Amino acid sequence: MKIKRNQLCGSLRKSNIGKIVKLNGWINTRRDLGGITFVDLRDRYGIVQVRFDNDLPNNILKIVKQLNMEDVIAVEGKVQMRPSSSINKKISTGEIEVVVKDFEMLSKAKPTPFEIKKRETGSENLRLKYRYLDLRTEQLQKNILIRHEALQSTRKFLSNEKFMEIETPFFIKSTPEGARDFVVPSRENLGKFYALPQSPQTFKQLLMISGFDKYFQIVKCFRDEDLRADRQPEFTQIDIEMSFIDESDIQKVSEKMLKQIFKDTIDKEISLPFPKMTYQEAMEKYGSDSPDTRFEMKIENVEDFAKQTNFKIFHSVIENGGVVRALKVKNSAEFSRKNIDELTELAKRYGAKGLAYVKFKENKFQSGISKFIDERSGKILVDKLNLTDNDLVFFMADKWKVSLIVLGSIRKYLGKKMDLIDKNEISTLWVTDFPLFEYNDEEGHYQSMHHPFTSPNEEDWKYLESNPEKVRSRGYDVVINGQEIGGGSIRIHSREKQNRIFSALNISDEEINRKFGFLLNAFEYGAPPHGGIAFGFDRLVSILAGEDTIREVIAFPKTTTAQSLMIGSPDIIDEKQLKELGLKIEQKK
Amino acid sequence: MKIKRNQLCGSLRKSNIGKIVKLNGWINTRRDLGGITFVDLRDRYGIVQVRFDNDLPNNILKIVKQLNMEDVIAVEGKVQMRPSSSINKKISTGEIEVVVKDFEMLSKAKPTPFEIKKRETGSENLRLKYRYLDLRTEQLQKNILIRHEALQSTRKFLSNEKFMEIETPFFIKSTPEGARDFVVPSRENLGKFYALPQSPQTFKQLLMISGFDKYFQIVKCFRDEDLRADRQPEFTQIDIEMSFIDESDIQKVSEKMLKQIFKDTIDKEISLPFPKMTYQEAMEKYGSDSPDTRFEMKIENVEDFAKQTNFKIFHSVIENGGVVRALKVKNSAEFSRKNIDELTELAKRYGAKGLAYVKFKENKFQSGISKFIDERSGKILVDKLNLTDNDLVFFMADKWKVSLIVLGSIRKYLGKKMDLIDKNEISTLWVTDFPLFEYNDEEGHYQSMHHPFTSPNEEDWKYLESNPEKVRSRGYDVVINGQEIGGGSIRIHSREKQNRIFSALNISDEEINRKFGFLLNAFEYGAPPHGGIAFGFDRLVSILAGEDTIREVIAFPKTTTAQSLMIGSPDIIDEKQLKELGLKIEQKK
Repeated sequence: MKIKRNQLCGSLRKSNIGKIVKLNGWINTRRDLGGITFVDLRDRYGIVQVRFDNDLPNNILKIVKQLNMEDVIAVEGKVQMRPSSSINKKISTGEIEVVVKDFEMLSKAKPTPFEIKKRETGSENLRLKYRYLDLRTEQLQKNILIRHEALQSTRKFLSNEKFMEIETPFFIKSTPEGARDFVVPSRENLGKFYALPQSPQTFKQLLMISGFDKYFQIVKCFRDEDLRADRQPEFTQIDIEMSFIDESDIQKVSEKMLKQIFKDTIDKEISLPFPKMTYQEAMEKYGSDSPDTRFEMKIENVEDFAKQTNFKIFHSVIENGGVVRALKVKNSAEFSRKNIDELTELAKRYGAKGLAYVKFKENKFQSGISKFIDERSGKILVDKLNLTDNDLVFFMADKWKVSLIVLGSIRKYLGKKMDLIDKNEISTLWVTDFPLFEYNDEEGHYQSMHHPFTSPNEEDWKYLESNPEKVRSRGYDVVINGQEIGGGSIRIHSREKQNRIFSALNISDEEINRKFGFLLNAFEYGAPPHGGIAFGFDRLVSILAGEDTIREVIAFPKTTTAQSLMIGSPDIIDEKQLKELGLKIEQKK
Repeated sequence: MKIKRNQLCGSLRKSNIGKIVKLNGWINTRRDLGGITFVDLRDRYGIVQVRFDNDLPNNILKIVKQLNMEDVIAVEGKVQMRPSSSINKKISTGEIEVVVKDFEMLSKAKPTPFEIKKRETGSENLRLKYRYLDLRTEQLQKNILIRHEALQSTRKFLSNEKFMEIETPFFIKSTPEGARDFVVPSRENLGKFYALPQSPQTFKQLLMISGFDKYFQIVKCFRDEDLRADRQPEFTQIDIEMSFIDESDIQKVSEKMLKQIFKDTIDKEISLPFPKMTYQEAMEKYGSDSPDTRFEMKIENVEDFAKQTNFKIFHSVIENGGVVRALKVKNSAEFSRKNIDELTELAKRYGAKGLAYVKFKENKFQSGISKFIDERSGKILVDKLNLTDNDLVFFMADKWKVSLIVLGSIRKYLGKKMDLIDKNEISTLWVTDFPLFEYNDEEGHYQSMHHPFTSPNEEDWKYLESNPEKVRSRGYDVVINGQEIGGGSIRIHSREKQNRIFSALNISDEEINRKFGFLLNAFEYGAPPHGGIAFGFDRLVSILAGEDTIREVIAFPKTTTAQSLMIGSPDIIDEKQLKELGLKIEQKK
């Protein structure tokens, strides 16, 4: 490089007029005007107008005439005021231009497969293949900067609060609780595998036992789950653990941290403390354990009504221990058959057998299950839901959980579709008092709702063996704008209690010892009471950046089939490598 | 927890006298004295004396009598002045004690397998098994704190310098240049594997192409190398890349960063700029590409002397293009046969066939090769090495590299053994002008000394095909106290030039395209000139902490056979897991 920059494209102002500057950057646009070539030169910091006049040496002019978009160039020139007619108030360098005296071609560019200034000229898959070009776009430049600032803000806050950043290992041991592990074959120990951590859970607990009473880490974790729309096989987590504390300590420090992050990255104030809601209430009112409280439309218990109707299904569901719940959609009686079919499809995806509904128009019930509603039952429903003209009501009659989840999903769907959400609002919420266990119908035993290290509510230990479903945990989730962005719990810190949990989960002693023996042993050498929390960093940043998918806030994301279209991974490996690992491929896709 | 702390053990002072405080911690020591029990209570922040008087309720006294070392307890009590006879000026809380009013047992401890106050009561393997206890020791608490501070200092410095922290992916593609990759089988893409990064090299280059002109990351990397004494399969790296720069920019920012880290973590000033030395000079004078310049004892070219001796081996080595070098060990003629045998063994480990030596005593040459030295050749040697009474000289006559490496190893070994090193000194050094390639005798072709993305010195491109060994690279290493703690280079940023390098390395077009096609393509869309550096963070922290091995600065290290003795990894995995991955184990250990 002959001409190495001494100024940044975005930094030049009127105060630089008269100075000779050196700039390096990409050609954002070029236009020729009466023998003069104007180039908008771009770097990470902004754009500046660069002007090639006719009196430049011919060898330079020749190259200038052939400049392409995205070429990388170096110029040396004089900053001068633009003619008043061409001042651009929209950009911070809009009053000046740089008149080129010397020039160097640094790197030529072929035409890009989509326009850097117009991302939408490329499909998502095309842009993933050329991710290094997509990352040049204004949107991704901004998102990656927000992510950078969120990283710094988080660590700075936690360090100031005396948390210690401690790196936990990536090569650990497979413990198939919860999701599937990714594994790494060991060449030094043939036939054996490391597992990549789904979270540093056991290690952060060991660190508490070691006496590091405040730990944090922003760390990659790995989960080999069946892929869904917005999931990545590798993801980033803010991981926190504290000793000698209770729920309120974790919650307070988490709230302060989030407040700081919102302030530092997008200059938004969020108010503390966050509201709290029990799992029971969240499910009953919002049909979700991560309710979006930015809009109303709550679910109601309409069993009094249901019993009064002639609708046999309602009766039999209630008799069989099920529930009947309703969701009122205000002023929406004009929903078409097609609209309702769509919602019925959505309901079925969440486990409904069907979706009953009725319209309330001119003081009468119409369509759907209206024929089962007589005057008396109708009155009960009108009063309960406070129905007014043109309201639409959906009903779910099924088991408790499925009824609520289905109506909750319809609620979330309609909240977006009907534009009920103020996008500028940040709603925060703690959800608490989760059940410790949930029953896994397929495998026929209980499983942890969070993970097996979660402490039950002290007063619920007595139900552990007799009535496991009644046991509440000391877990808590943080929800922002209807998305769970963090969750944690107070942990068990005694071998005996941890063993009781494993037993309730039907894990054999042999398995317990093989997989968690080190932790149980550690509990016997002086384990402090402790607890913690983990935040999904990708999700958090997507909220900060106002993006719907986490792919927009990850520099090099994978597709929904866990592939990198850019580098072409995963890929086959050499026979030699396989042999060294003592492995044979039995099945290919 | 009934008694949750409101003070830290290490924080109480005379100014707290009269206050009622709550403390939580571990029992560091206990002693009974005339019915009173004194306990030193420990947390991360220090130790405080806690006093249980006789007038406490019986139920508390009963438990207190049975307190063990490392039990975790909570106390509430009044801070009071110690009797002047028992003031301990050595600790910051030594003037006060806490007289217990209320007490809570938080967690009992079994006797620990080694003493927390005396690490050396446990072997390293025992301590690795109980790493969570080893981490309670003063030494590891201190080291992990230094590591934490180094992490914060590094990121703060780089963020302030406008570097952006960008996370690169862990699931990438196997590119068997250099060391072996660890691989991860993909369940979603059976028969295919991800590779874990040996470094984010290609990704940081892509980020430069994306326009993020200053990137950093502190990141885990993975290398499946044959294990050596102080190596870990997973390690941490400070990774840096910049655009529109040359060597001096990277070197300046690296020096400033290191200065800041030394200042912030151990309050040590290091002076800038670091001295520079070419690879050629480092090898010729110190027999190492990472010379320890804290002590003299330089290697000398003694070929003039060698030619004058009657020692045939010297003559034939020189005739065959080899070299003769000498290392003077001052005032060491008293070295025994055993000492010299040890050094000869060391020399052989580094590839020597033997190790010639001679002693200079009372103006005469004795032992070793003295019989081949006549007066004339002796005079040349005395003058060249400036020999004085009782000096010892070692000679290597072999190929250039092996001769120097061997003498360099002896130099390093003796520097330590003879205590020639001032442990308080921090010596810094840039080593530059490395050869771009080295010849791999086993595989019969050239390989990159750093990696294939390193740019050759501009003026040496002309030798690339004709005389590859003559080509110097634009690489640079940072050496601190004789340890390479970082290395980097200016990179190639053109497809055509990168292809020339791959050709010189004998990599087929097909392989190039499969493995590096994405990077070569990216070069064609406007790639800025760029370069970077990476620092071995574990090694750097070990220097800050004054430790010889990186295991002492990693919270949960692996053994030299890449195992975790604590959690027992790697381990077998379930048949079900293997089947899901489409794999079969062909060979076990």
